[in-house]
Amino acid sequence: MSRVFVIAQGGGPTAVINQTVAGAALAARERHPGCKVLGARHGIRGVAAGDLVDLSAVSEADLRRFADTPNSGLGSTRDKPDEAYCERIVAGLQKVNADAFIYVGGNDTAGTMGILDRIETGAMKFVHAPKTIDNDLVENDHTPGFISAAWFVAAAFLSVDLDFRAMPGIYVGIVMGRHAGFLTAAAAAWRRDGEKDGPHLIYVPEAHFSPDKLIADIRAARETYGRCVVAMSEGVQTEDGTPLAESLIPDERKERDDHGNLQLSGGDLGLALQAAITAAFPKVRARVDTFGYLPRGFAGMISDVDRREAFAIGRFAVDAAETGSGSVAMQYADGRISLKLVPLAAVAGKTQHMPGGFVAPSGNDVTDACRAYLDRLVPPRPEVWTPFV
Amino acid sequence: MSRVFVIAQGGGPTAVINQTVAGAALAARERHPGCKVLGARHGIRGVAAGDLVDLSAVSEADLRRFADTPNSGLGSTRDKPDEAYCERIVAGLQKVNADAFIYVGGNDTAGTMGILDRIETGAMKFVHAPKTIDNDLVENDHTPGFISAAWFVAAAFLSVDLDFRAMPGIYVGIVMGRHAGFLTAAAAAWRRDGEKDGPHLIYVPEAHFSPDKLIADIRAARETYGRCVVAMSEGVQTEDGTPLAESLIPDERKERDDHGNLQLSGGDLGLALQAAITAAFPKVRARVDTFGYLPRGFAGMISDVDRREAFAIGRFAVDAAETGSGSVAMQYADGRISLKLVPLAAVAGKTQHMPGGFVAPSGNDVTDACRAYLDRLVPPRPEVWTPFV
Repeated sequence: MSRVFVIAQGGGPTAVINQTVAGAALAARERHPGCKVLGARHGIRGVAAGDLVDLSAVSEADLRRFADTPNSGLGSTRDKPDEAYCERIVAGLQKVNADAFIYVGGNDTAGTMGILDRIETGAMKFVHAPKTIDNDLVENDHTPGFISAAWFVAAAFLSVDLDFRAMPGIYVGIVMGRHAGFLTAAAAAWRRDGEKDGPHLIYVPEAHFSPDKLIADIRAARETYGRCVVAMSEGVQTEDGTPLAESLIPDERKERDDHGNLQLSGGDLGLALQAAITAAFPKVRARVDTFGYLPRGFAGMISDVDRREAFAIGRFAVDAAETGSGSVAMQYADGRISLKLVPLAAVAGKTQHMPGGFVAPSGNDVTDACRAYLDRLVPPRPEVWTPFV
Repeated sequence: MSRVFVIAQGGGPTAVINQTVAGAALAARERHPGCKVLGARHGIRGVAAGDLVDLSAVSEADLRRFADTPNSGLGSTRDKPDEAYCERIVAGLQKVNADAFIYVGGNDTAGTMGILDRIETGAMKFVHAPKTIDNDLVENDHTPGFISAAWFVAAAFLSVDLDFRAMPGIYVGIVMGRHAGFLTAAAAAWRRDGEKDGPHLIYVPEAHFSPDKLIADIRAARETYGRCVVAMSEGVQTEDGTPLAESLIPDERKERDDHGNLQLSGGDLGLALQAAITAAFPKVRARVDTFGYLPRGFAGMISDVDRREAFAIGRFAVDAAETGSGSVAMQYADGRISLKLVPLAAVAGKTQHMPGGFVAPSGNDVTDACRAYLDRLVPPRPEVWTPFV
């Protein structure tokens, strides 16, 4: 009997998440002629409900167009399944005689796969394929979607820094990233050494933050650079480990997903910071922008490396399903990236924070080690020439 | 005696404003060998203070690197000169024996040039070179900087619309543009006809807006499309012509520049809309993002056409200075763009609003005529393929 693969996408989208689906679909038909590849609409919700589309019937040309389209083209979900829901998922997979379920997502998705894998399903394989702009999966050097999002953030901070060179003042850009500061750190990727370039301050969730420290740091930076550009993670935490944004959101707008993640819109944080900065530096040009969803599936800047890696992970997931359940991990050694299948439990529910060595002791910048990591991933800076201001 | 040109940049930066400076500097040395081209740092502030850099000494290669660098590389200012300030500007120009002063900016800049031109300065010429992402200069088909910013906005709305296809909900993106809706309208540039694509609602300052109308419109759009993506200008006005954002900003943060323009950060508007939407649609995924400065000098997406037009305007300004003072205008007729020198008074202080025929009678969308205009300017949409959601 020919093979049946079910594939789905979970959690927040990325610019290259469809590459992984296309890579898996194309690899499956290449490796297993006559196989069936079914895409579930809106993640496990579609698996449980039997809401499936037949990717086997899609031409290679269309799959490649699909791959190049940013954001989750099968639809996604933030559902966190309980036991009964998991049983329905398994029943949905059994109904179509699935040999393997490939689920593209972050650590919540890996967690769901771990639960499914513990249910008695005979020979069915559960393969988690990584994606997240947060870059916070353990076992991975970086994750698909991060490079494109980081590229956007690097470009945005180069741009606003040039803006504030032209008319000095204070700028704060708030970047997504609940627990890990990688995407915010990417603000430094295009900062030239010895050129007084911004961002002059970078705050990530891995270092303690306080508004008082921010004001003092801005004061010092303005003395040195004549302006101050700040990259701030929406997940910055106060000394007791509470996200600052959380304490600023009025209760009636506190919204949590099924995984218990509070939606940090950045808007409240932004407005609170704008008020604090205006009070501390009256009459100084000051602006707080919240990047929000813009970096995460931006159609204007999709990295070719990111595309290729996401596609390769989809291909690898199909082969991996021959050997067992697990999570595909993109690892780095000896100057090259390789793919490996690691246990689901090694990834599920765990958060990869920035290494200690990536955060400057000052708590308001990243280190050269972090910069070297970013330089390896983020596409090169366009040439800029700023001799006059 | 060989000629002396002084050139400066005023107001908010764009992605291509340095192209105009480079175009002028290169044309001047080509047309008038041995001439002097002086760049004023921070606009008229540098002219008055004699804070000038010698662009004649810069190699063509460096000027081209300068041209390709986004945002005002000579520095900018929002100073609105009074009579005494204008006298100092003229004195500064006379001190270096300027034959012509070329000032790159928007309608405030054109206004400053009009005042200078009325001061007795002998044969000195005052040429305003247009730029603004707001695209709100009269006499111009469009303005340098607009195409690149519009490209960013088009890409951003394609991206978030795909995001909300994957996980339905309500999204509002707030776009800069105090008086004119062109940049917000650019959200529709990559919307496919008959594909249920967003933005489903577009609000510009040229049509009356109310939060109640927004909620009703969102409700209707969700029934039709299952989701709702909204593009909103930060300058949307209530029925009495007051910007909504203005009424939401607490007095202690109301900041006006010398031209009396209130800084609309969008943050207050965003948070007020977030609260209104969450109250009206509890439990629905809802997100309000403020694009802020991101579209205006974004290093990641600079249109080649925009580059070339801005450069050509700089060249034209040098030739125009031979004939008299005025404002360079980019006009469109018979399928092509041409440059023309129009009187400063024709542009100064005037705002080009979106034509009535560009705003749908519903007040919540743009028309086919607007779309045709955008299609002529904004680079083509990347292919997307969305058959499944």
